[in-house]
Amino acid sequence: MGKAARCAGLDAFFKPRGCAVIGASRDPQKAGHQILRNILDAGFTGGVYPVNPNESEIAGVRCHRSLDEVDGIVELVVISTPSHLVDGVIADLSRRMERVGDVRAVITAAAGFGETGTAEGRNRQDALVGCCRRWGIRQMGPNCVGIIDNVNRLDTTFIMGTRRKPGGISFVSQSGALGAWLVESWSSQPEPAALGKFISLGNMADVEMIEVIEYLGQDADTRVIGLYVEGHPQARSLVEVAGRVARRKPVVVLKVGRTEQGSAAAHSHTGSLAGSDRVYDGAFRQYGILRAGTVEEFSDMLQTFNSAGLPDGNRVFLVTQAGGPGIYCADTLSSFREVEFARIAASTKEALVKALPPFASVCRPEGHADITAAATIEQHCFAVEAVMRDPGVDAVILVTVPTLYLPPPALASALVETLRRLKAEGIEKPFLPVLLSGDWVKEGRMTLERNGVLTFETPDRAARAMAALIRYNNILGRDERGRGSGPVEVRAL
Amino acid sequence: MGKAARCAGLDAFFKPRGCAVIGASRDPQKAGHQILRNILDAGFTGGVYPVNPNESEIAGVRCHRSLDEVDGIVELVVISTPSHLVDGVIADLSRRMERVGDVRAVITAAAGFGETGTAEGRNRQDALVGCCRRWGIRQMGPNCVGIIDNVNRLDTTFIMGTRRKPGGISFVSQSGALGAWLVESWSSQPEPAALGKFISLGNMADVEMIEVIEYLGQDADTRVIGLYVEGHPQARSLVEVAGRVARRKPVVVLKVGRTEQGSAAAHSHTGSLAGSDRVYDGAFRQYGILRAGTVEEFSDMLQTFNSAGLPDGNRVFLVTQAGGPGIYCADTLSSFREVEFARIAASTKEALVKALPPFASVCRPEGHADITAAATIEQHCFAVEAVMRDPGVDAVILVTVPTLYLPPPALASALVETLRRLKAEGIEKPFLPVLLSGDWVKEGRMTLERNGVLTFETPDRAARAMAALIRYNNILGRDERGRGSGPVEVRAL
Repeated sequence: MGKAARCAGLDAFFKPRGCAVIGASRDPQKAGHQILRNILDAGFTGGVYPVNPNESEIAGVRCHRSLDEVDGIVELVVISTPSHLVDGVIADLSRRMERVGDVRAVITAAAGFGETGTAEGRNRQDALVGCCRRWGIRQMGPNCVGIIDNVNRLDTTFIMGTRRKPGGISFVSQSGALGAWLVESWSSQPEPAALGKFISLGNMADVEMIEVIEYLGQDADTRVIGLYVEGHPQARSLVEVAGRVARRKPVVVLKVGRTEQGSAAAHSHTGSLAGSDRVYDGAFRQYGILRAGTVEEFSDMLQTFNSAGLPDGNRVFLVTQAGGPGIYCADTLSSFREVEFARIAASTKEALVKALPPFASVCRPEGHADITAAATIEQHCFAVEAVMRDPGVDAVILVTVPTLYLPPPALASALVETLRRLKAEGIEKPFLPVLLSGDWVKEGRMTLERNGVLTFETPDRAARAMAALIRYNNILGRDERGRGSGPVEVRAL
Repeated sequence: MGKAARCAGLDAFFKPRGCAVIGASRDPQKAGHQILRNILDAGFTGGVYPVNPNESEIAGVRCHRSLDEVDGIVELVVISTPSHLVDGVIADLSRRMERVGDVRAVITAAAGFGETGTAEGRNRQDALVGCCRRWGIRQMGPNCVGIIDNVNRLDTTFIMGTRRKPGGISFVSQSGALGAWLVESWSSQPEPAALGKFISLGNMADVEMIEVIEYLGQDADTRVIGLYVEGHPQARSLVEVAGRVARRKPVVVLKVGRTEQGSAAAHSHTGSLAGSDRVYDGAFRQYGILRAGTVEEFSDMLQTFNSAGLPDGNRVFLVTQAGGPGIYCADTLSSFREVEFARIAASTKEALVKALPPFASVCRPEGHADITAAATIEQHCFAVEAVMRDPGVDAVILVTVPTLYLPPPALASALVETLRRLKAEGIEKPFLPVLLSGDWVKEGRMTLERNGVLTFETPDRAARAMAALIRYNNILGRDERGRGSGPVEVRAL
């Protein structure tokens, strides 16, 4: 089967006309219960068919004794029955394919297959995949958490009670637990991350990572791709495909197995021979794939690429109302050699000095303005607007610890208004605001994010995200000021 | 005045018999309002005296026209009036000292003094400090956020609505904004950090960092000291004193100005000539002062030193129920050369293999057990108990992404029970659990923390905290296995 055809086959996972859950359960502590709940809660628009021979109804939905008995169209089947019952499932699936022939995709959530390393597990996996292949069905897993498509309102996972916010982030994970962790964490942010698709690959017995990357590269809903990687048998092909996609949209990778210990643990976990991390690392750089060092960096990069546009250059201006946190941010920013601190025009400096509180410190050093804790909401907005308008500035970070006279929601609304005004005049530059601290600023951050302005937990996280935007610019060779373009820069990253 | 005497003078900041707020206000957007609120909310047991000539009562408390008019004992005075009114405050304070003479400490929250760099500001500061010196009063600030002492139930800051949990962490900050940010963030955790004292130094016109470190070194309530540092005129003396204290209790420093840009910004902010960061860094290592690279690391180190005991050695065992997050943790752990992965006894291995789910991966590699997502609560506890009991293990990390059949609060309670049983037998080793993910585990984390077991946000944060425990062990030269003892190791850190 050609690559295009294989990719096309993946559509059925995200846009099936009907979905059955084999092993649906009444027991809320079972995956077969939560999967059904999530399909219903996400507002899936096709038919939903729980299958369990011992129940007549689950969660208010009529239950079927077998897949074969389902009347409606079933394009996607989620298997949640224990692996030792797989023969029965295969027989049921085969009967349906002979009679109706509508199933196009299977997601196997159950564990106990190839990942066990036993002959029994491998045989079960081979039998299941063999059946799917025979009928031209694509199979995800086994031993996977499932998939989420918030744009198409489908959630076949058993992750508990997430808050959904459709968006351009697609996240592919080689570990179910790591996938579930991040999806759940993103949902616990003040405002959930804009997750489009989540794909838990599990054992990759059929659908594997490379074709998923290819698929997401072509997917119009996907603006940025995040990959959690332990290792891949075709590592070379993986980076080549991801690198090709990365010329169109950012590909961010979180790869573990950096160390001997981690690499040995990865081998036990997914059986993947991680290979030398340095080889992967070099390949990522060479092919323009962005590597995140931590989950926080991974999360921030995905969210930033999804919500902020790319800057026209690497000249960053930092506006801070908070001395210490501003210095902390400056330290992180200047640890990235791709970042330059912006030099603003004398007229901008003058305007700032005039409008800001008397003891504000403007451009000492260049690219840095401490507007002091005395700054009002108006002065925050004035400073942001002035530097955004300055032609010497490509992107702006704002750090603020709102005081008593700066109610965070009011500050947030005023900033949104300022950005809106600038946008109406055609001035759009990456603007990464950091509203500190904790619960005190939660509502303010939500206000900004609901208006499309991503906010950050800490100043250094914003600084790292900013550096990633500039690094990706260099990868694309689109720095308009003529520096750092093309593949040579990519190799030198 | 000798060091001991100077230090002794600081007591009045934390245990005053009565407290007045000059510039107390009815306006909730003013610091003078929030300071009074915080003093009342924290449950201060001494007399509370708002001073404002234009009000008769604020927040249900009788207001006084002047400090001099207050009938009760006033040992601590908080000044929140604008700096241009400082002459009036000085006159009022002097009258009271002549007549009653009870004030021992002044906290000046107001800004507009020496930090402005103007002659006017410096003169105001000199006048205020001069008056205090004349009467033997210690002065904190000006331009500071205030102090918190959760053990003595005093909070003179204007930080909004924090949740209080008294404990052994003392935190000294050279930046008010950074201080407020961290205090607020710690209060926004699932369970607040165990903050004992918070001291915002402001301009350090009288009380400065070194004597505060000395004071906290002697303070029985303080188990660990955290310092946010931009720079200090007596840098050498600072590290010497902090290093001396660090032989008794851990001193953790977050120092900014790492880069030229950050250092220039620090100079503008507190006027501190940061000096070369490499010199500071070398001195911290030499004197056994732990340096945190990020605020997260700073926060985690303070909380870990407060709640966990020190391990007897550097042999760490990692129990993970989650493949990917476990590998991620192993990677971070093994990036610290002071950490060794524990080799457990053959009998422990056998017991684990027997009790854990069939496809658990035990000691592949050594020091690592993946108990798999199939692990029950009992199997979690069994694994933790087995490795805690093994004499080849000095400390344990647990990583888990609780599944549907592992309700986090139930898992947490069972773990608490296990630890309690071990403790009753005299087995106490650092145990750092990571319950992932987000809101799903919030209640579980609270259960553990309310029982004295600190939890972590991410696996790598636990790994870093673990490494810090071991590093501090090396500083003290108390590794019982005879390695890495004494000052040589300290220098080599």
